[in-house]
Amino acid sequence: MRIGELSARTGVPTATIKYYVREGLLSGGERIRHNQVSYGEGHVRRLRLVRALVETGSLPIAKVREILAEVDDPRRDLDSALGVLSRALGRTREAADPEPADLEAAMAIADRHGWAAMGAEHPQMKALADVIGTLRLLGLEALIDRADDYAGAARIVAETDIEMLAAQTDRDAVLESMIIGTVIGDAFFAAMRRLAHIELSGRRFKAHENSPDDTADD
Amino acid sequence: MRIGELSARTGVPTATIKYYVREGLLSGGERIRHNQVSYGEGHVRRLRLVRALVETGSLPIAKVREILAEVDDPRRDLDSALGVLSRALGRTREAADPEPADLEAAMAIADRHGWAAMGAEHPQMKALADVIGTLRLLGLEALIDRADDYAGAARIVAETDIEMLAAQTDRDAVLESMIIGTVIGDAFFAAMRRLAHIELSGRRFKAHENSPDDTADD
Repeated sequence: MRIGELSARTGVPTATIKYYVREGLLSGGERIRHNQVSYGEGHVRRLRLVRALVETGSLPIAKVREILAEVDDPRRDLDSALGVLSRALGRTREAADPEPADLEAAMAIADRHGWAAMGAEHPQMKALADVIGTLRLLGLEALIDRADDYAGAARIVAETDIEMLAAQTDRDAVLESMIIGTVIGDAFFAAMRRLAHIELSGRRFKAHENSPDDTADD
Repeated sequence: MRIGELSARTGVPTATIKYYVREGLLSGGERIRHNQVSYGEGHVRRLRLVRALVETGSLPIAKVREILAEVDDPRRDLDSALGVLSRALGRTREAADPEPADLEAAMAIADRHGWAAMGAEHPQMKALADVIGTLRLLGLEALIDRADDYAGAARIVAETDIEMLAAQTDRDAVLESMIIGTVIGDAFFAAMRRLAHIELSGRRFKAHENSPDDTADD
């Protein structure tokens, strides 16, 4: 297909496609005439992956290049590639080492939910500790106290995600779905959390203020 | 307190505090000597709120100013302020109007979970439709099919959030917790979702490849 069709299939503007090729995130098309280049289904898949990482995940180009190198390395088996990717996807910003108390709080949560085996040094554990530190600085300890509700919901979503991955047929498809699902799944969940907020807060706070005959506490 | 203590209490560098004052996001301290300015507990609270919006929520300064104006408007009752804030927090980027099919898919999910009363025109409904459109473009329809699992988890988290809000004692505290909790709660959930991913994918994919005597399908 020509670049225009590739653009239409993926929603990525042609100028952006050319930029990704220059940056080495996408291989160039096959030159079939001196002024015409042809792209295939492999380009569609790779472009979707790049778009998810750059636009939805807001990852820097250098980080995207690093992630793609993992996907493209045939020596990596699936389990090892998934491990490397989960580390890479966690460090969207280089957090300073978390406070020991925050790391301890993160490990306590992880321990209660069977996630502690990866240890306190894993970047994702540090990422959780980092959020806990922010909650503390923002005066929102109440949310740390409710971590188990969040953890239970996270397990439901994660089980769904892994079932989706396991339904894929080949190694590259598993890795691509894992990467895309990780970054866009956050936005998918966040959008629904906000819809639920609106419905629940409308019931609770409106009832308190305007409708004393309505029951607010369910 | 002096600006150094305000900085230590909130984790915001003094240069950044001065920048927020210049941008009108934080009122200046009280001048107690010609070369000394004093800040109070109100500044600590407001600075935490600004930090959550700017750093964790990555919202532009103009949007933060708009949100603070809502919090500070005494004519707004709680329910109306929550409604305006939920709209403002949803539009982190100005999405083009979603495709009708995507909006229909969003409304169908909302309908099944009791969130459809706000209608298809609500910015949060459009935000969900926008994510669905992205999932489709990225070839991840499998995740749309699993929306109900996500929605069930979103309800658990949202109920926890609203209980936390309802435990607050005054209007400003409710609004501040709502804003901070919305932006940082996404990161809190995402960190735990990733921990669950690692644990579950380790069990499923490692077992398949390396440990045939281990059970992978539970």
